[in-house]
Amino acid sequence: MCELLGMSANVPTDICFSFAGLMRRGGGSGPHRDGWGVAFYEGKGVRCFHDPNPCHDSAIAKLVESYPIKSENVICHIRQANVGGVSLANTHPFTRELWGQYWAFVHNGQLTDFTPKTGQFSAVGDTDSEALFCHLLNTLTTRFSEPPSTTELIEILSQACQPLLDNGVCNIMLSNGDWLYTLCTSKLHWITRRAPFGAAHLSDVEVSIDFTEHTTPADVVTVIATEPLTNNERWHEYERGEWRLWREGEMIIRGSLQHRV
Amino acid sequence: MCELLGMSANVPTDICFSFAGLMRRGGGSGPHRDGWGVAFYEGKGVRCFHDPNPCHDSAIAKLVESYPIKSENVICHIRQANVGGVSLANTHPFTRELWGQYWAFVHNGQLTDFTPKTGQFSAVGDTDSEALFCHLLNTLTTRFSEPPSTTELIEILSQACQPLLDNGVCNIMLSNGDWLYTLCTSKLHWITRRAPFGAAHLSDVEVSIDFTEHTTPADVVTVIATEPLTNNERWHEYERGEWRLWREGEMIIRGSLQHRV
Repeated sequence: MCELLGMSANVPTDICFSFAGLMRRGGGSGPHRDGWGVAFYEGKGVRCFHDPNPCHDSAIAKLVESYPIKSENVICHIRQANVGGVSLANTHPFTRELWGQYWAFVHNGQLTDFTPKTGQFSAVGDTDSEALFCHLLNTLTTRFSEPPSTTELIEILSQACQPLLDNGVCNIMLSNGDWLYTLCTSKLHWITRRAPFGAAHLSDVEVSIDFTEHTTPADVVTVIATEPLTNNERWHEYERGEWRLWREGEMIIRGSLQHRV
Repeated sequence: MCELLGMSANVPTDICFSFAGLMRRGGGSGPHRDGWGVAFYEGKGVRCFHDPNPCHDSAIAKLVESYPIKSENVICHIRQANVGGVSLANTHPFTRELWGQYWAFVHNGQLTDFTPKTGQFSAVGDTDSEALFCHLLNTLTTRFSEPPSTTELIEILSQACQPLLDNGVCNIMLSNGDWLYTLCTSKLHWITRRAPFGAAHLSDVEVSIDFTEHTTPADVVTVIATEPLTNNERWHEYERGEWRLWREGEMIIRGSLQHRV
């Protein structure tokens, strides 16, 4: 199973602490040796780092861990390949431009009986994850010629994800730089940190941080991850089929896909 | 004036040596303090590094200079902003997916009397460079519903660039990972290195390399840059209006835009 990490914050915030924990799982404390990647939004821009090599000994991962890139939306993925070989083209996050925004996508899972919708977006690599991303974007462009309201958009997006609940494992993080959409069909956890801030300790490596030294009382930062990254805080577990839309650190809409029985 | 750097090679080759020279111009020996970026193709995949900070003291640039990423096509840009503020969204290279390939674009120049063609590709930032990139892609998708032959494609691309020759400065590098298209309307130089290889010395910093230690006799590597990067080799200057298409280090098609008088 791949590992996902996302962040939504109301002030540009670096993700070095969480990333330090996650990267140990990339071939270090975890089995995910098949590459990793991260997308940082800064305003309308996005910068991605992709590496098809294991992240626990990646020079690029060491840079990302030590160089504080301040962002309001981040998504990150470390890969345990199942569909599609280990290559740069198959390394998440995948990004596309739609309606003058960069959209970035990471996915954990395997899809069965899935026929992607064709349209203006095509996959470059051969993962089912990238095919799913293009399917979702093609669904949106077929339905909307102009950017709809966020509420409308998320409704159609969630409807398009509906069949995925019963066709395999499909945990998703998708951002357009404005919001962060997260869907859990098997495993995802979240934590929102806000004042009064305290200290946190990573589960995977002997690293602690005192957030009071790095924050102001108005800061709100939510971190979403496959497994909790710290062992002294209370993380919340997504329900199976639950989706949550985050903006500026706060959950603004949530819902649940329904099982077909 | 921004600085451009491109590479086309028949074997995966790192660009550390040339990049070391170029980055000194990013606020060091040159006036280009407004960010930099580079796109490395590896197979069908592409990895980009973008930094809105000056590259001569960028931690990310130091990584790119010291970490040999092997690629067959590279394009790189250091920016001296004119249209569009300094931000990540305005930092080259710009990338889009078209026909299941990642296309990457860098541009040096300023455009006047330019109205970009609308279509499925929209700019995210506010540079004329990204607007031009989207214009070219929208021109291609309007003309072709399926990927055409390279010859046909380059003909339409060059026709679309024709008006740019008389409407400002427009030096371009565009790659889809298969080939590298280069257009010069004011300044661009190239050098092809092949056996017998020799030593080269950078113009901007005291760094030399002996290519015989890093190559095999079958290697062919072309480097294209705004200004020659070495001071002991013979670089060739593009003519004004000249375009060249490179693949695997060799020039496969060339042509010239005509001035309208």
